[in-house]
Amino acid sequence: MGLFDRHAGLLDAYRDVRTTGYDPFQIRMERVLSPTKAIINGRETLLVGTNNYFGLTFDRSCMDAAIEAIEAEGTGTTGSRIANGSYTEHVALEREIAEFYGKKHCMVFTTGYQANLGVISTLAGPDDFLLIDADSHASIYDACKMTQAEVVRFKHNDPSSLEARLRRLGDKPGNRVVVLEGIYSMLGDRAPLGDFVNVCKKYGAYVLIDEAHSLGALGDHGRGLCEVAGVIDDCHFIVGTFSKTLGAIGGYCVSDDPDFDILRVTVRAYMFTASLPPSIVASVRQALRVVKARPELRTQLWDNVATLYDGLKAQGFTLGPEHGPVVGVHLPDRMTAIGFWRAMLDAGIYVNVAVPPATPNGVSLLRCSLCAVHTKEQLDHMVEVMTGIGRQFGVLPDKQLRAAGAR
Amino acid sequence: MGLFDRHAGLLDAYRDVRTTGYDPFQIRMERVLSPTKAIINGRETLLVGTNNYFGLTFDRSCMDAAIEAIEAEGTGTTGSRIANGSYTEHVALEREIAEFYGKKHCMVFTTGYQANLGVISTLAGPDDFLLIDADSHASIYDACKMTQAEVVRFKHNDPSSLEARLRRLGDKPGNRVVVLEGIYSMLGDRAPLGDFVNVCKKYGAYVLIDEAHSLGALGDHGRGLCEVAGVIDDCHFIVGTFSKTLGAIGGYCVSDDPDFDILRVTVRAYMFTASLPPSIVASVRQALRVVKARPELRTQLWDNVATLYDGLKAQGFTLGPEHGPVVGVHLPDRMTAIGFWRAMLDAGIYVNVAVPPATPNGVSLLRCSLCAVHTKEQLDHMVEVMTGIGRQFGVLPDKQLRAAGAR
Repeated sequence: MGLFDRHAGLLDAYRDVRTTGYDPFQIRMERVLSPTKAIINGRETLLVGTNNYFGLTFDRSCMDAAIEAIEAEGTGTTGSRIANGSYTEHVALEREIAEFYGKKHCMVFTTGYQANLGVISTLAGPDDFLLIDADSHASIYDACKMTQAEVVRFKHNDPSSLEARLRRLGDKPGNRVVVLEGIYSMLGDRAPLGDFVNVCKKYGAYVLIDEAHSLGALGDHGRGLCEVAGVIDDCHFIVGTFSKTLGAIGGYCVSDDPDFDILRVTVRAYMFTASLPPSIVASVRQALRVVKARPELRTQLWDNVATLYDGLKAQGFTLGPEHGPVVGVHLPDRMTAIGFWRAMLDAGIYVNVAVPPATPNGVSLLRCSLCAVHTKEQLDHMVEVMTGIGRQFGVLPDKQLRAAGAR
Repeated sequence: MGLFDRHAGLLDAYRDVRTTGYDPFQIRMERVLSPTKAIINGRETLLVGTNNYFGLTFDRSCMDAAIEAIEAEGTGTTGSRIANGSYTEHVALEREIAEFYGKKHCMVFTTGYQANLGVISTLAGPDDFLLIDADSHASIYDACKMTQAEVVRFKHNDPSSLEARLRRLGDKPGNRVVVLEGIYSMLGDRAPLGDFVNVCKKYGAYVLIDEAHSLGALGDHGRGLCEVAGVIDDCHFIVGTFSKTLGAIGGYCVSDDPDFDILRVTVRAYMFTASLPPSIVASVRQALRVVKARPELRTQLWDNVATLYDGLKAQGFTLGPEHGPVVGVHLPDRMTAIGFWRAMLDAGIYVNVAVPPATPNGVSLLRCSLCAVHTKEQLDHMVEVMTGIGRQFGVLPDKQLRAAGAR
């Protein structure tokens, strides 16, 4: 039996996808021109699926910071944080992120994936309980495979489901660690964080929140959902990434726990991986300064969210439950979603397609993500294009019927 | 009970380490001046513990490539390889690494840790057997936590131990995947790869070899131990990293398996993490060109290995079993190793200290790693310094006794 035989079904399905048109999972950015434009399949394409929320990948000050760091300290550290890989700038970045949240401690990781994987799998020990939202990101699920704790899932964004699970645990010994996300990446919906925190307080559970998609986007200072909900102090651990609003790669975890630094010698995904190159650390530090200095980027982002979300909604598309920097568009099935995605690409617009098993409840989605530097014209155009394709694919009500139905 | 209470023992031990002098796990490179020099604790220090084997972090052509990429395509991709994160340059890098090994396929990962974690945990499925060397790297052990396969350990670098394990599995159904490393990172010793491959052939096992520390260093073309042993074609999967000889971060896996690309939609550590920023991809591509164009760097590296290894051996230090770009120096216990490491740092030389539980068989080590651009004078000086400290710590025979004993 061959190594890949057990994937035969997937292999066949994937071959079907690949042979019917562009492969959505191997699309190539032939050349990226700006945060909102790239050459794909030889044509200039509008990017509305990159999670580049503030467009900082091409911010001159961030680029300059990265370039200066290469000139000063080279292309990489060639070492882990516990060997030779802690430069002054890694430590400065940790201090700056801790200060951003008003927390005492911060650890920086080489990827956001490794931040979640390492911290979550280590926090909950063999006699503990790890309670996760059913729609958690892959990195959280992967941490569950690695932890020795007992993993308990609760219903997505449902504090009463979490409470039922915690109640059922009764007085069993062991810590309870609850893992939430500020904004969920598929539908752009937010955790009802205040309610979750109240449940956690009632049952003495620790809260870890992943603000990957909300850093920059939410809160008066861009600190994420925990700032909006006013519960920064109640979140024992806040995790996030440098690969979305901050325009690079990497992850972090902040906490006020006095023993937090023990994670530096217990989290293997931190200890046994090369640290972030100087250029990445420098551009992330500068991007964080931009987030603090330019709140108008957040305003622009939400204006763009409103334009796209409200525009699509008005045309009759079925969307995620609320405005968010990610706008998830429901489509009836996998092949319709892939066909729709291809038609969009042929029309010069790139979004993400998300299909089972990567999606919650087996839904098929187009995932659009907004950028502060999208123009209203670009997004109005996109609504028009999607409406045309939606009619063509029969996923929107007929224009006349709809007009009649509206009366 | 607090979240960190179960680490109380480690916390106490670690407090002891931290309060008696410099913390070896939080040393800070205040400023890195070159591949072999940094400011640490306010003084210029010789770096002999960075795994920067060719010194390419400060290679002008690699730095320029990184800078050009930032100017052209920004600071990051803000997307995973299966979304918007595959740029022309990622695909070119994959092709170039595949060609370097003469293999058909290559996948590039954001870290070497994620390459091992993702590939190894996915290759071996629920009914398979994953056979690993007892001294495997943390990323391989972490893959074992994540796989559904049955994990079987064999004795370090012992083909007969592997054979016994494979024989014991008899005709149980399921694939056998054997994981080896070209050069082991603690003692710098190499796998007896030819013998291992013969055992694997006999039992129909797949071979995966991690050439993290041997890429560039071993083989006429720098392809690693598999080139030296003449078994590139017999290694079904070759994994490696960009964070040592190639001077950046990231990892890769190459293979000739026709179904290899299925890993692009099954390996979660590839699918659900942001791809490498353009600057990293560019400097790695250039570093690979340098590895191919400048074999003299390999010669210089091995000359330096000989100077340090033979010099320390002649003084009576107990070393790893053979010449290697990593030279492990045995010390009797953890606190001696940490004290020795601190004395070295006070003398202006940085090496790594490795103590249990991070080391095989509970040994305590100083790990030195050589760089092609170390000078003979630097290394002769280092041998002199280490000899002085070795005498002071009583881990070297007394000079007179030794002279007498030598007769």
